[in-house]
This record gives sequence, C-alpha cells and structure tokens, in this order.
Amino acid sequence: MIYTYLGPAGTFTEAALLQVPDARGSERVPAANVNAALEKVRQGTADAAMVPIENSVEGGVSTTLDAIAKGEALQIISEALVTITFVLAVRNNIDSLDQIRSVATHGHAWAQCRGWAEANIPQAEFIPTSSTAAGAMGLIDGESSHDAAICSPLVAQEQGLRVLREEIEDYKGAVTRFILVTRPGPIPAPTGIDKTTVILPLTEDRPGALMEILEQFVVRGVNLNRIESRPTGEGMGRYFFSVDVDGHVAQERVADALTGLHRVCPNLRFLGSYPAAAGLSSVVDAHNSDDAFAKAQSWVGGLRSRLTA
Amino acid sequence: MIYTYLGPAGTFTEAALLQVPDARGSERVPAANVNAALEKVRQGTADAAMVPIENSVEGGVSTTLDAIAKGEALQIISEALVTITFVLAVRNNIDSLDQIRSVATHGHAWAQCRGWAEANIPQAEFIPTSSTAAGAMGLIDGESSHDAAICSPLVAQEQGLRVLREEIEDYKGAVTRFILVTRPGPIPAPTGIDKTTVILPLTEDRPGALMEILEQFVVRGVNLNRIESRPTGEGMGRYFFSVDVDGHVAQERVADALTGLHRVCPNLRFLGSYPAAAGLSSVVDAHNSDDAFAKAQSWVGGLRSRLTA
Amino acid sequence: MIYTYLGPAGTFTEAALLQVPDARGSERVPAANVNAALEKVRQGTADAAMVPIENSVEGGVSTTLDAIAKGEALQIISEALVTITFVLAVRNNIDSLDQIRSVATHGHAWAQCRGWAEANIPQAEFIPTSSTAAGAMGLIDGESSHDAAICSPLVAQEQGLRVLREEIEDYKGAVTRFILVTRPGPIPAPTGIDKTTVILPLTEDRPGALMEILEQFVVRGVNLNRIESRPTGEGMGRYFFSVDVDGHVAQERVADALTGLHRVCPNLRFLGSYPAAAGLSSVVDAHNSDDAFAKAQSWVGGLRSRLTA
Amino acid sequence: MIYTYLGPAGTFTEAALLQVPDARGSERVPAANVNAALEKVRQGTADAAMVPIENSVEGGVSTTLDAIAKGEALQIISEALVTITFVLAVRNNIDSLDQIRSVATHGHAWAQCRGWAEANIPQAEFIPTSSTAAGAMGLIDGESSHDAAICSPLVAQEQGLRVLREEIEDYKGAVTRFILVTRPGPIPAPTGIDKTTVILPLTEDRPGALMEILEQFVVRGVNLNRIESRPTGEGMGRYFFSVDVDGHVAQERVADALTGLHRVCPNLRFLGSYPAAAGLSSVVDAHNSDDAFAKAQSWVGGLRSRLTA
Repeated sequence: MIYTYLGPAGTFTEAALLQVPDARGSERVPAANVNAALEKVRQGTADAAMVPIENSVEGGVSTTLDAIAKGEALQIISEALVTITFVLAVRNNIDSLDQIRSVATHGHAWAQCRGWAEANIPQAEFIPTSSTAAGAMGLIDGESSHDAAICSPLVAQEQGLRVLREEIEDYKGAVTRFILVTRPGPIPAPTGIDKTTVILPLTEDRPGALMEILEQFVVRGVNLNRIESRPTGEGMGRYFFSVDVDGHVAQERVADALTGLHRVCPNLRFLGSYPAAAGLSSVVDAHNSDDAFAKAQSWVGGLRSRLTA
Repeated sequence: MIYTYLGPAGTFTEAALLQVPDARGSERVPAANVNAALEKVRQGTADAAMVPIENSVEGGVSTTLDAIAKGEALQIISEALVTITFVLAVRNNIDSLDQIRSVATHGHAWAQCRGWAEANIPQAEFIPTSSTAAGAMGLIDGESSHDAAICSPLVAQEQGLRVLREEIEDYKGAVTRFILVTRPGPIPAPTGIDKTTVILPLTEDRPGALMEILEQFVVRGVNLNRIESRPTGEGMGRYFFSVDVDGHVAQERVADALTGLHRVCPNLRFLGSYPAAAGLSSVVDAHNSDDAFAKAQSWVGGLRSRLTA
Repeated sequence: MIYTYLGPAGTFTEAALLQVPDARGSERVPAANVNAALEKVRQGTADAAMVPIENSVEGGVSTTLDAIAKGEALQIISEALVTITFVLAVRNNIDSLDQIRSVATHGHAWAQCRGWAEANIPQAEFIPTSSTAAGAMGLIDGESSHDAAICSPLVAQEQGLRVLREEIEDYKGAVTRFILVTRPGPIPAPTGIDKTTVILPLTEDRPGALMEILEQFVVRGVNLNRIESRPTGEGMGRYFFSVDVDGHVAQERVADALTGLHRVCPNLRFLGSYPAAAGLSSVVDAHNSDDAFAKAQSWVGGLRSRLTA
Repeated sequence: MIYTYLGPAGTFTEAALLQVPDARGSERVPAANVNAALEKVRQGTADAAMVPIENSVEGGVSTTLDAIAKGEALQIISEALVTITFVLAVRNNIDSLDQIRSVATHGHAWAQCRGWAEANIPQAEFIPTSSTAAGAMGLIDGESSHDAAICSPLVAQEQGLRVLREEIEDYKGAVTRFILVTRPGPIPAPTGIDKTTVILPLTEDRPGALMEILEQFVVRGVNLNRIESRPTGEGMGRYFFSVDVDGHVAQERVADALTGLHRVCPNLRFLGSYPAAAGLSSVVDAHNSDDAFAKAQSWVGGLRSRLTA
C-alpha cells in the first residue's frame, strides 16, 4: 500500500495518517494540496489518501467536500480525529521567550495562536510560511534565519526540535476530522459503530425537496449526524448536501434508506460505510432493527408468492 | 364455485354479486347476516361471500369492517359498486298512488324514501319488514295484506312485480360498495387500476403513532383513498385503522410501503390487492415507479456486493 | 336548567346525566332518540342534552357523531364515562333462575349478555323490547307477562325491582362515553386536564391532505386521543374527521393549532373545550408551553414593531 | 450615511455597493476585511456595510456567515447580485497579448482565469497581489513593473486603464451575492418579492431536530431558498443553519413560522426581511395568504372570547 496525504510531512494530516496501523510501516507520500492527493489515488499512483474534511472551529473543508463529491468516484474507508494543538519550537541557542525576535508559521496557525503570541512574545515579528512544517524545518535548514516556529507536536518530535512551550493555541480542544480515501472497492465490514456518507444533489428547486430527502431517513429511524450544503457550481441556489448518518450499508435500515434516496435523488453518490472514530449513539428502535426488516420482507415476500401470473 | 351473500335474494347485495360474471351461472346461497356469510367462507361451505363494506351516505359498515379485521384470515378479491335506488312495487289490482293504504319495507329503506312517501302517499301506513325483499315477496305470498312495497329494482324484476314508480329515494346517487371475500389464496394479477386493503392496529398510544403510519405511505407516494377508525374492543381509545390505498402489492411502491408498515405495526393484516371498481387516479411520480424501485434496489445491491465479510 | 337525554329513564344515558351535579336536582326530560334530544337543545326547549358518543366495544356512535357535525352549531361542555353492566331483574314471585321462562330486553343488551343467558337460563325465551328500561318496566306494568328483564342497575334501583343476578354481561369493563351538549356559549374554564373536539371535513381528495391536517397538531406538540372518519354523505370517499385532542383552547398550543387548521380546513367546526372525564397525559414539552408561545409572540411582535410603513 | 465595504476600491464589492442608489453620492470607506467592515457598523463609524455572502461557484462566504451569526446583532436591509467578470488591463505601451511578460492579480482571480491565460498568454509570469485592484493600480503607480493585470471592469474604468481583453474568466456567468448590513433598526417595507434571513442554532443533537425546524416552514407554506450549515465552534457536530426564505416578516405566514421557530429554537437570530435582488416565485397558496391567517386568527379570537374566567 502506498499512502498519500495533504503535506508536507509533519503536519496534522500526517498525524492523522499515522493513526492508521498499516500506514506506519508503509510508504507515505505528501501531496501539495487536497486535489493533488486525491488525483494520485484516482490515477493509481497511491492507494489511499488522508485528507481533512471538517474542523470543529472552521467547519467543513470545502476543497475536500467538493473534490470527493465530483469527478471520478472515490470511497471513504476510515476516519481519524486529531486534536489541534501547537508547540513553540526554537533554535537550540534560544532559552527564553524574550530572546525570540521572529517566529515563522502558516497564516492559519498564526491566527490560532495570535492571542498567546501577543501576550507572550509581543516583540517577535511574524514570518509567514507555506506550511507549519516549512516554518519548523526552517529552524534547521541552514538557510532561514527566524528564531522560532509554531508547529505541530509531530514535526517537532520527528525533527528533534527544541520545544519551549506546548499547547499555545488560543482555543483549546479544536479537533480536525480526516478521512482516508481509496478508489471504490471492498466496503469495510460493520463494526457496530459505523458511519455512512452520501452526496445528495438537490436537483429540484421546489419547496419540500429537502424535507422529502430527510423523510427517507426519518421513516427508517436513521440518524443524521452531519449535513452540509455546498453549491453545485451550476448557479446561485443550486446545492448538494453532504450527509453522514449513523450506521452501515450492511444494516437494513441504512440500505433501505439508500434505496429510497436513490428514487427521489437518482444522482446521489455513495461515499462509503466505515467505522466511526468517535462513539455514536447506536440505539436503534426495535422496529428499525435488521430483524424487523427481515421479518417485514419475509412477510411481503409471502404475500407476493401468492400473486397470480 | 359456491357463492354466498348477505341475503335475502333480491337485495342490493345480490345485485352486487350478479356483477361478478362467474357468479351468474353458479350456486348463490343467501346468508342471514354478514357474519354468517363470512363464516360459510371460513368453514369452506362457500367459496366466496359478497358483503357490503361502505355506503356513501351511512359510512363504513361496522359489522363487515370488524368481521374481516378479526378472526381467521380472509382476502378481498374484488369489489362492486351498486347505486342504491328504490322502486314502488304494488299488487296487480293497484293502478294509482291514492289506492295505496299500506306500504311494507325495511326500516332503512323507509328512512331513505320517507320524504317521497310523505309527499306522494301520505295516506299509506308503514309496515316494517325484515328486509326490502321480504316486503316485496309479501305482495305475492298470499299471506300478507299490504298494498305496496318499497324494494330494489332487482327483486321487482326477478319476481315480475308491478312497478308503479321508480327512483323514489330522497337522495339520488347513493352508492354502496361491496367486497367479494375468499379464504387467503391467489392474489388477482394487477390490472393497472387496483386497490390494496390493510388493517392497521394502533398498538401504541403515543403521539405521532398515526403520523408514523401515514408517513410510510407518503414517502413512497402511495395514495390513501379510504381510512376508517374502529375500536379494537380492548378499551376506550384503542383503535385499528382500515385503509385502502391505490395500487397493488405487485407494484414495488406498495410492497415497499407494506414492508415499512410491518416494521412499525407488526400486527397489521393484509386483506388483498384487487381491481378497483371505479377509476382511481393512477398517476405515479416517476420516482415511485417500479422502474425507479428496480434501479434503486439494483444500485444498493451493487454497493452491498462490495461488502467485506 | 332543563336537561334532556337519550331516553327512556333508567338507561345508561340517564346514569351519565346523573353524574352531572347540577342535573340531579333539575328537570330531566327523556328524548326518543339522539336527534330528538339535540333538537330540543337547538330549539331551546332544553338547555343541555346528554347523548352517547363512543363505546369501547361498539365504537363511535354514528348518529351522534353525524348529528353534532352538521346542522346548527352545538357545543360540548363536559363528558361522562359509564361502565356498562347489566342486572337480571325479576318479578317478585321468582326466586331462582330455573323459574324463568321468558326474559325481556333490548336487542343490544341481549347481544351483550347472550353467553350468560345461554349458560344460566337456557330455557328462557327472549322477548325483544324497545329499550332495556321498557323491559324492566314491563315487570311492574300489569300488562306484560315476561318473568325477567335484563336492564341497567339504575332502573332496577329506581323502580325498586328484585335483582337476582348482577354483572351478567359477557364482556366485563365495557365503557360508554357520553357528552353533555349545549347551544354555543361560554366555554368552561380550563382545569388542567381538558379535551378539545373538532370536526374536520377533508375537502380535498389529494394525497397528503390528511397528513397536512395532522401536521398542524404535531408541530405544536398537540396530542390526538381520538380520530374517527365519517362519510359526509356527498359521495363515496368524502369524509370528515371527528378529532379529540388533549388540551384547551385557552392554551396557546391548542389555539395555535386551531388557527393553522382553520387555514388548511376553513370549514372546520369547533365543538368545545371541556374537562376530560379520565386522566390524560398532560405532559407538554417546554417549547409548547404557554410561556414559550408568549415569548415567541412577544419576540415576533418586537420585530414587527420595527416595520417601516 | 457613511458606507463601508470589503475593499479595496474597485473590487466587485464596491460594484455591488454602487448598485445602491444612495451610496453613489455618499462617503464610501473601504475596509481591510469582512470583520473590519462589520465592526465599523457595530461601533457606529459607518452606517452600513456591503459584504459578500455567497458565490455561485465557491459557495457561502464563511467569514460573513459566521460574523453576522455571532457577536452584536446586525440586520440585512438589502442584497445585490454582481456577475463576476474579469478584464485584462495593460500598460499603455502594450498593444498585443504576445508583448505581455508578466501579469499581476489576486490568487482567486488568477484561479478563475488561468485557463484563458495558459491559452492566450502562456509566456506571462504570474505576479500575486493582495487584491485585483492592487494589481490594477500597479500599472499606474510608478513602482511596479508588471505589464498587465487581471481585474474587475469597475477598477479599469475608474482608473482609465487600457483594456486589451474582456470576459477572460474561464467560467462565464458566475455571480456573487452581497448583503448590505446595518445595526438593527427599521425593517424595509415589503415589496411583494422579499426574503427573510434567520440563523438557527441546532441546540439539540437528537434525531429529527432539523426536521422539526423545517416543518415549521412547511406547515405555513414558507419556501426555503437557501440553507447552509456552519459549525458553531463549540465542538464537532454542533451546527447552526443560515436560512433564507421567501417572504417578509410583515406577512402572516412568515411571522407565524418565526413564532414557531422561536419555540423550538429560542436562540434563533432574525437577520432581516428585505427586497430580493432576483425574482423569486411569489406564489402563495390561498390557505397561507394573509387573508387566510387573518380569518383564522379572528375565528380563534371569537372562540376565546367565550372563555369562562
């Protein structure tokens, strides 16, 4: 297996990839951006790509949501959650915060640590870099001159950097969710706590179209745990919905809801059933259990066996 | 085939039975009441029973609704509509309305023609009989003494009675619907304009239980054309619903709705899919067509073929 | 106050009327049938009528349901529940069951006690009477000759009849619900456990019309506790629904649901808000409380106060 | 009136602002970013801010969606649509495309014109600038050295730049929607074709919470024309919905839906009722008209006037 991910090495996406047991001992190829990572998978130069899909503060990652909703089909086979936390890495000759005259990092990371920086290293100039990892590598590349970098704990650890402060982010507990994407293929067996992701284009503009979609879930007791709208690009007011539900296509209630959705929304896209990274409520009413579905289907099957030709 | 029906001979129920081509040349056994007719079928002494189920003025026929909802399973294989109209039959020596001193009929028929009678034969005394046919037969039985009878056109015709006036009912156009009931067996092939009847006990008292049932129809675009509530007899507020929908169990949208109903209402009873006597709107949205169902099931089947063991 | 009721005296309807404190010391006029009782109220010769509306075994009383749904407006101001139980009253010279050669009662009562009669007085001939009270009165009228009567405990007590057996009904625990009906006028203040009754004609035949009505209740958290369909008499498949909900028009969620219903069903008929005879679940979600409504209305009122002319 | 907008001058946001008649002759102060523009309004240094809210290709503008959903209350008083189209402006000494060695613009604009550039000026180096206006101004600032700039027609016109090509964007017809935001105050009178915007936090995680919100619209026939989810920032899976509906709070069906929403979602935020920039379907069912609401309220008012104290 060859893995790719939103690079460079040492960012949170690589941290997410390292949560996949098989990926630790495999080839891991960074990609320049989300589309590039997914293209490697589509073209077969990589077998799987880890990309961010949702951040608890920033929201859905539009690039990823759009890239997997369109183009050649892809499949999600697992997800990973990474808590976003930053460290202040410094050159070996820096011993205290007041010695720092410049700090390099990506603009996003700077935005997330600015409060801490203004309070603790007000004298330091901000040097923007193309990634947090790039800022960190600058401390040891012999070319850059900044005194410090704001980066992920992973890159600091991998590169053996001197860490002066940890958890310097202004908002604690931000989490990013990543998905591991392959070409369509075998669907992971259900674990009992699974998610299913679908893309639902809203082809009709009439009132109630979204309701009609949601009812397909409601009548089978299938719980939505994420719904996001994205423009289709075909004009103002044309959307698709990216939806995660609790459960697995191997479960009858999910399969039946997908059958219903295919009727009202024939251009839907199935993006996978896969183990949920965090516990979901797995309470299913008796009348939505596989057993209830099996009995119902068997009963109707019995009726239809009596049909006159 | 032996047919039974709510007797006696010459009533509207026999008129309904005579609409069944096969019944005209077959043995037709009148029964004393609806339960007796259905019992003959259950016990095998008759093959099919014609009984009234609904009147456009009086509403559902409770006895029939209850009798087919409970006890040993039965099946509806066809329905018939009979326009309820009455004639005034008289003894041969009666030539004009003012000669009539007494008129015999069943209380129900009297109620439906009373306006006419008060306006046209105010001098006539009303003699109640056990059926309209009994009143008619009294004109020729040599025992009774009434001058006239209010009865169905059928009995007047069959017995060669003298008819002085037709269509004497106060409300024109009343229609009674009858059903032909057999033991469970082959289900008639779909004709394109069919009905399906189910009995749905509302086992749970919680709010929204009826809504949950109706949604199973709505999400498949299945149109209700009759819904009636009846007490289960298990206590105040415990009901079952007798429901007719457009369509046939051979159609996917109906089969799928039945599957959903079996889950939320496992004690439901299927009473048959059969040709509708009067034209129903047979417009089905493309996304609820058999083709849409087939494509949806095939698509989900494709997904599930990729499941890892 | 003059009270009327479905007579004759001594039947279960009078028992229901006697549950009304004010009725015990007031004039009580029996009526020949339900329509006659309601007519007395409409014409002002009585102030209130007690009539049966629902039986836990037989279902809704169609005559009453129809009579209050049509014609000049009426109002329900209270309801009463009566447990249906029968006694065997006998002539004073009868000491044991085997002495009874004939038993008089109404056909309905006979149907409900037939199992007991066949097991305990198989030798007795059944004499049909126009009411259970008539059968009972026959024991002391000096004209009739039957030995026994099946009647309500009330008439036996009122007439001082000799009672040989009590609770001879085949199904124990059957309950009939009665309503006290007046001309439209003051609505009883809410007690906390109230019911509201409405008549909802289904004017449109299109799919989903019933759903649309029910949703008006669901979105305000208003619980249905009875729904019955009745034909309007305007043709097969034309119905009105008679509906009881938990709560009182004085409560905002009920008033708001009625407002919504009036829009989708402008010909609806309000039949009253009145104390429930038996405990109803009175749990109302916080967001459907009067307080939540008041806050919501006040908020929207604030917005609208900013409207530019 | 002092107007602010997402600057700098000459971008599409200023083009949107110039659609507002009053803004043409008023002071227009560019702001560095969306938050800065809204802050000027909140603090009173500007009276109104024009900011982008939605792009037909890129989707909702997250910064704006979040900024108006949180913090001190604001109000939308109008919207404007601007078709996004780019021109190629050049120095006066450039006469043909093959003379262009470098072209400056903002990265977003470059992305939208890259196909054209690669086909028509493949030799030209891309010089990133902080805005399209900055690239355009560079042609005449005496400091920059690039030969051409990709910019809006507005800035080219305002600065009298030489335009070599128009409509060079790869996707024709992209539209951006802008909103004009003030402090809460008078609500514009209804025009007949209006929109209402609300922010609906989904406070409860339970299944059906989104359905419950949507039903508040559906039962009043209020049509959704935009729904977008955004994270609240309080943790993965916590969203608010930004929703536009057809209609004005001055209309009863909208006011009634808002009343219902306030109950199920008390922390909702009303962002304004204002004229729609593009024609919306304004078909309202008779039973959702102001007249139907007025009649319904008057009817219920009549009932409640009969309440006993």
